[in-house]
Formats: sequence, C-alpha cells, structure tokens
Amino acid sequence: MKLLIGPKGKKFLLDDEKTELHTQYGVVKLDGAKPGDMLLSHTGREFSVMEPRIMDFSEKLPRASSIVLRKDLGHIIANTGAGAGDVIVDAGTGSATSAMFLANVVGPKGEVHTYEIREEHAQIAGGNIKKAGFDKIIKIHMKDIREGIDQKDVDIVNLDMPDPWEVVPHALKALKPGGFFVAYVPYVEQTQKTVQALSEKFKSIRTVEVMEREMEVKDIGTRPRTRMQGHTAYLVFARKY
Amino acid sequence: MKLLIGPKGKKFLLDDEKTELHTQYGVVKLDGAKPGDMLLSHTGREFSVMEPRIMDFSEKLPRASSIVLRKDLGHIIANTGAGAGDVIVDAGTGSATSAMFLANVVGPKGEVHTYEIREEHAQIAGGNIKKAGFDKIIKIHMKDIREGIDQKDVDIVNLDMPDPWEVVPHALKALKPGGFFVAYVPYVEQTQKTVQALSEKFKSIRTVEVMEREMEVKDIGTRPRTRMQGHTAYLVFARKY
Amino acid sequence: MKLLIGPKGKKFLLDDEKTELHTQYGVVKLDGAKPGDMLLSHTGREFSVMEPRIMDFSEKLPRASSIVLRKDLGHIIANTGAGAGDVIVDAGTGSATSAMFLANVVGPKGEVHTYEIREEHAQIAGGNIKKAGFDKIIKIHMKDIREGIDQKDVDIVNLDMPDPWEVVPHALKALKPGGFFVAYVPYVEQTQKTVQALSEKFKSIRTVEVMEREMEVKDIGTRPRTRMQGHTAYLVFARKY
Amino acid sequence: MKLLIGPKGKKFLLDDEKTELHTQYGVVKLDGAKPGDMLLSHTGREFSVMEPRIMDFSEKLPRASSIVLRKDLGHIIANTGAGAGDVIVDAGTGSATSAMFLANVVGPKGEVHTYEIREEHAQIAGGNIKKAGFDKIIKIHMKDIREGIDQKDVDIVNLDMPDPWEVVPHALKALKPGGFFVAYVPYVEQTQKTVQALSEKFKSIRTVEVMEREMEVKDIGTRPRTRMQGHTAYLVFARKY
Repeated sequence: MKLLIGPKGKKFLLDDEKTELHTQYGVVKLDGAKPGDMLLSHTGREFSVMEPRIMDFSEKLPRASSIVLRKDLGHIIANTGAGAGDVIVDAGTGSATSAMFLANVVGPKGEVHTYEIREEHAQIAGGNIKKAGFDKIIKIHMKDIREGIDQKDVDIVNLDMPDPWEVVPHALKALKPGGFFVAYVPYVEQTQKTVQALSEKFKSIRTVEVMEREMEVKDIGTRPRTRMQGHTAYLVFARKY
Repeated sequence: MKLLIGPKGKKFLLDDEKTELHTQYGVVKLDGAKPGDMLLSHTGREFSVMEPRIMDFSEKLPRASSIVLRKDLGHIIANTGAGAGDVIVDAGTGSATSAMFLANVVGPKGEVHTYEIREEHAQIAGGNIKKAGFDKIIKIHMKDIREGIDQKDVDIVNLDMPDPWEVVPHALKALKPGGFFVAYVPYVEQTQKTVQALSEKFKSIRTVEVMEREMEVKDIGTRPRTRMQGHTAYLVFARKY
Repeated sequence: MKLLIGPKGKKFLLDDEKTELHTQYGVVKLDGAKPGDMLLSHTGREFSVMEPRIMDFSEKLPRASSIVLRKDLGHIIANTGAGAGDVIVDAGTGSATSAMFLANVVGPKGEVHTYEIREEHAQIAGGNIKKAGFDKIIKIHMKDIREGIDQKDVDIVNLDMPDPWEVVPHALKALKPGGFFVAYVPYVEQTQKTVQALSEKFKSIRTVEVMEREMEVKDIGTRPRTRMQGHTAYLVFARKY
Repeated sequence: MKLLIGPKGKKFLLDDEKTELHTQYGVVKLDGAKPGDMLLSHTGREFSVMEPRIMDFSEKLPRASSIVLRKDLGHIIANTGAGAGDVIVDAGTGSATSAMFLANVVGPKGEVHTYEIREEHAQIAGGNIKKAGFDKIIKIHMKDIREGIDQKDVDIVNLDMPDPWEVVPHALKALKPGGFFVAYVPYVEQTQKTVQALSEKFKSIRTVEVMEREMEVKDIGTRPRTRMQGHTAYLVFARKY
C-alpha cells in the first residue's frame, strides 16, 4: 500500500498497482511514484507519497463500529508493556484497530489472537488486517471469548466488550505469570463488576481514565483548544502473579 | 533476569545466577525458581516469580534523572505508530527509560539510536540497557544531537531535551517521508519555539498534554483519587511529508 | 418578570403585564398566573410559573458578545469573596452577564461599576440590567478603563478584556487594602503580561483554569459525558496589600 | 476583626481590641493600626493591615471537619444563583464554612439556616459565625435534617452530608418554585442514589465535577503545576418546578 497526503492533509490509501487517483483536487498519475515523491494533480495541487504507518491504516480502513482512540491504545501498550514477541489475546475484534496497533508492536515474532462473534465485523476486520499487512501476526477467532480462551502462556488479554468480567477466569488460565489483563469500559458500573471479578485472583488492579487536551500554539497566541473529548472509557488493568 | 513480587507489591529484580534474596520480609532461597513459582521467605511471606516486563525494568533500574511517565510514553508510541522494525532516534538518553520502551516495540529488526552528552547518564543508561536485554537494539551515541543526526531513513525522532527546536533541521534530513518528530517539553514557551521551528518544513503539527486520572473502585464506593499528576510535559508532534 | 418553563425545559422570560404567550407548544393564557402555578397551553402542554433567578436572566436576555460561563463566574466570586456590600469595578460590560452575577451577590448595599467603550454593547447591557432589576446596583460607565478608574475603596476589580495589564496601575489605586484584582484571559501570553504587570505591586498572584465535567447518571449506567468544554479562559487573581 | 498579612503571606486574624501580636517574625504593636497600614515587627519584618474577607475567615478559623473548597463553593453559588435576599437551608454545618460563604452572598436581607446533629461541630461553627460577623444571617439548628426542614419558601437547599437523598422529600416541600437542591458527594454511588431520589419530582438534574488547575507563570517559563487536586466531590444540582 501507498499513502498520499494531498491538500488540507487529506489522506489517500492506495493499492500499489493503482495507476491513477481521482480526487476533488484533480487527477493524480501514479506511475512509478515512490515514497518521498511530490506529485501534482492535473489541476496543479500537491500530493506527497509515503509508506503508510499504522495510524494511516486505522484512519482510512473501513470501520465496523466505534474504535478505541490512540490516547487509550497508547495507555494500554505502555501500561502492559506490550512489545516484540508478545502473545496477545484481544476481543472483540470490531474493525481490528486495536488488534492492528497491538500487532504493530508485537511484530513478526509475536501473535495477536482476536475473538469476534459477529460475522460482519470479522469480515471487515479480515479485509483491514490483510490490507495493513498484519495477516501473519493476527488471527481472527470466530468464537465467544466468554466461553474460553484457546491460547496458553499469553502476555496480555485486552478486552473491548460490554461484559469483560465474564472473561476473568479464562484470562487467569491463559495468562503467563506477570501477564496483564486490560478492559476498556465506558461505564462506572462496568469498572465495578470487572474489579470485583478480578479482586480474588489478580493483583495490581488499577482503574484509570486518560484525558487528552490539545494546545493551540499559533501566531495569535497559545491556548488549550475550546472543545475536548470528555470521556471515552475507563481502563481497568490487572496483573496475574 | 527474574522478577519477584513480594508482600505489598514490592518488586525485586534479580540476576539469574542469584541464589538468595534478603528482604525486610525475610530471606528467600531461589534455587531453581522459575516463572509461576510461589516462594516462601524463611518467615513465611509469599514471593511470586515471573519474567520481568518492560515496566518492571523501568521501575527497578537506576535513574539518571527524572523519567518520562508511561502516560506520555504510551501517547508517543500510539501517535507516532512506533512498532516492529522502526528506526528511532532518541535524545537525551537519561536513564534510557524512553529508549527501552521504544526498543521494546521496535523489536529485534528495529533500531533505537539514543544521543547523550553526559558521560554519567550514558554509564547508567548502558548498564540498564544491558540488564534489560536491549543491547542489540539500542545504541548509545555520545554526541550532541543539536550538531546533527547520523542516521538516515529514520521513522521517528523522539526528543526529551530542553531545546528540541535546535534539532528540527537535522530531524528533517534524517526522517523518512511520513516519519514523525516528537518533543517532550514541560513549558509553554518550549512548545512555542518548537512549533515555530517546525512550521516551515513539517506538517500535521499538534501539541497535546495527557492527563491520567485514577478511579478508586472499592467496597466503600467508587471515586476519582484525591490527588493526581497535574502536569508532566506537553508533547509536540509533527510529520514530515 | 416571570419565568415559564415549558416542555423540554424550554424557558420563557416574560414581562409581568404580558397576558398571553405564543410558543411552538401552543398558546398559554397568563391571567393572574403566579409562581408555583402549572399552566396548560391550548394544546394541553404544561408550563411551570416561577420567579426568574439570575441564571435565567443570563440565559434568556440578549447577548452582545460571548459571555463568561458560570464555572468561571463562580470561581471569581468564591476566590475574591465577592459578597454583600462590596464595591466592584468591572470591564468590559458586554451583555452585562458578569456585572449582573456580581450585582446579585453584592446586593442593594453594594455597587457594581461596569466600564464599556462600545455604545452598542452598553445599549444591550443597559436593557438587560433594567429587565433583571439591577439598575439600582449596576452603573454603566462609557469610558475606557485603561485610562483610569473613577471609584475609590473598591473591593474587587474584575476584567474581561484583551489587555487587562493596562489596568493594573489603576486597579492598584482604586482597590482597598486586601481587595482583589481578577483578569479573565483566554491566551497564555495574556496571563504572562498580566502577571508581569502585577508582580511589582500585588501579592498572592495566582493563575488558574477551571474545568467542569458532567457525569451522566442514568439507568443505563454512570459515565462522564463524551464531550466537554476544553477551555474558556485562564483566571489571574491578585491581592493588594 | 483585623487581618494582618506578614512575611511569606502568613495571615493573622485578630480581635480589634488586641494590642500586640507575637509571631515567629517578631512582636507587632497594634495601637491604632487601621486598614492600609504597614506595621513593622520589633525585628523589622513587614505586616500589612486590612479588613478580613470571607476567605480569610475560612482559612484562619477553627475547623470541625474537612471543608468544601472554593472551587466547589463558587460552582454552587453560580449554578444556584445564590444572591442577595435568598433564604438558604444548609446541612451539615461542620465548621460553617459553606454557611458563611453563602451568608456572605445572601447578605443582611437573606437567611442561612444550617442544620447540624453534632454538638461539638455546632460549638465550633457558632464561634466561627460570631467572629466572622454572620450571626444575624446564619442560624444553627440542632436537628437532623433527614427528619424535616422547618423553613418554607426556601431558595436553595445545600447539602454536604453522606445521605442527601434522605432529604429530597423535605427539600421538595421547603423549596420555592424555581428553587435549587444541591448535594456535595464524593462517591459515584451517592450521586446515583441522589439522582434516583430526585428523578421523580425535580427537574434539570445535573451532576458535575469541578477541576481547578493552577498555571505557574514565572520568569523561567509557564506551565501547569505538577500536582493538582484530582477530586473532592461531585455536585448534584436539581431544580423544583
């Protein structure tokens, strides 16, 4: 895949065999275009060519449902220590945004097993994973994770689902000593049920929320942006040991 | 290295050859201990054995200076898309906490080049990197990054230093098309100078701060924690294209 | 004035002599209606009658420009100790929202002197003040406050204007010992210039921002609201002594 | 009462008849001192004389328990429109901090009725109220407010107690049409029970939290303060109509 960024930061994700891109800013010929090139549309507008990075895929690929934002994905990665070679279990798959961000850090020696029960989500996710080149790392399991986790010696169990507490006993079995459980839940009641389920068997249980605030640094002056995201979800972390 | 977690979540990071651990909770014999074991000290206190993860290293290894917190490291990773195979330039090294978190996600096919000018920091960093097993991925460069970056085709330039704006021209040369510049700066004035330096040549310039807030989910009730971190630093992101 | 609240919390502010209210929910007859009554429109919709409070005036009266929100007005009142009998100088008047909230707490023994340079704002403000019944407490001065403050023994100088630092010397003369200076400024640069101007002569200088976050407490569950106000302005407080 | 502010902003609240103040910065003679005077201690340190304002009383008078902070008091005042002439019911009294801030805005034509069940709190509160000069406005009622409110035509019922939901039916009877109910509660569960109790009979029910963040504006640079208050309490507002 190639990424083109045109006027106003508009992104276009293209298959390598594509030879022409039609946009509201004119037609761009792609023959032989490679990263670092600056192409002009037939109306003279500029398009930069580059290799897409993970966030370009998550921005441009089709969505099955609302996705976990980067502020939360980053917090999950840093607080579970997700990294090269990790085996991660993930549910539900949705558009595979979380699975792909995780695959991007576990790399070719790692594995991401993502569980999904809705066929149409799995379809979209499968297409996205293939386009983003993660099909060797991510495996979609058409299974209700509340009925069990098939993997062993798992480093992280990452859950974005309404009732993550149902998965706690399975996660306990699947995780390595020192491995992490994470649940992404919008409601306080969900944090309570999850913490309750974890409290017997897991340690270092911690519920946090992450707020991202943008600063506008402009010639006219510097100030926080007027509007911000007030809430996405709470993150419940726990460790097995 | 082995990690033991004892009473009250106290962590002990041990060389594999170590045979005995002396703690305030008694002496623990380590002969043949492996991940998943539960050891008892001579006074009967429990210690869980596991392989350390990246945050265990960052918590237990010696510090040269204040470190970048996970809330910010996670945000850097997710918003630059740091992942398997990336080549990352990092400065200043400090205790190598940031370099190690980045090495953990770029993995064996990636590279982290970290620049440091203080010999005593490089010493501490070198020891930490070796203990955490990242010495094949991270290379410490004893050089002032304001004088130039020696790497080419870099995916991310990550800066935790007082004057990151001095590095902007070097980052521009070193970065791949689509690569990211990030600066971690505590003061508003630093964001202004950095954004100013970036504004000619970089795109998608964005300054954010990340606030982490803990929820106490307890039997007595659920509430945000009384105290929280009010500020660590602003993160300035920019992309080359 | 009377306040009617109809379907969906819609508020109607009415002169006492008004006998009929025409709304999208039908026509309401007002003959003899008094606080506590529940009126029905000709289509059978309910309207509650009550005396308006200060926020009803600020919501329903015409606006000259953007107004200071309650989260900031409340912070100003509590941190200057604005209360019964205080003499307050205020600028610029705008729609007189701030002046009216302050008049509401200083009461009949207090005075609010509000300075405005734009005739059209003063017109709107004058109308609002009269409707809300504060014309004995608030006096509009058509004067540039940067040229001087005419009052003496003032308790609070409250400024919502682009360059409050120009007023610092005048505030110093006008304020009582122990009196407060407050500036409401959106930009960091404005806080810097204001603090700089204050630093020689004022004490207890403090710059804060107030963030209000709504919790949705519903049958489906409890969670912070998705969107929130990220920023209105910084408040710079200082005390003369 | 007189207020003296000495070195490092240290405040001293003094009875008018006091003639000498002994401090760690030396002895200050008070004969004839009046607001605006600068006194020198016998060791040459400066003390400014002024009339105390409401926050000086709340800072210096004895405390019975933890008090409601200004960020929350200000929000209560602005969002209930507390002002001149209002009749307010308040519970529990504690040190009377909330009652005094409310008395300060309702003024001599207003009334604050504060309910307390602990004799020792009422003692401390009574002393504070007298010293701050609010004894004509505030009346302490030694009664459990959960058993009923004796006042009629009340503008605001302001509750800082563990189970404010028990007071909802009494508040409904006591409040004027258009009057406000406010509860200050630290826990999510308390907001849920309060909102539940309010939901049948009250309107405009709204739960918020207020976060105050300080900016350090210094020569070295401008930045948010490292530490901040993460949480005090949620405020539940509702209106009767």
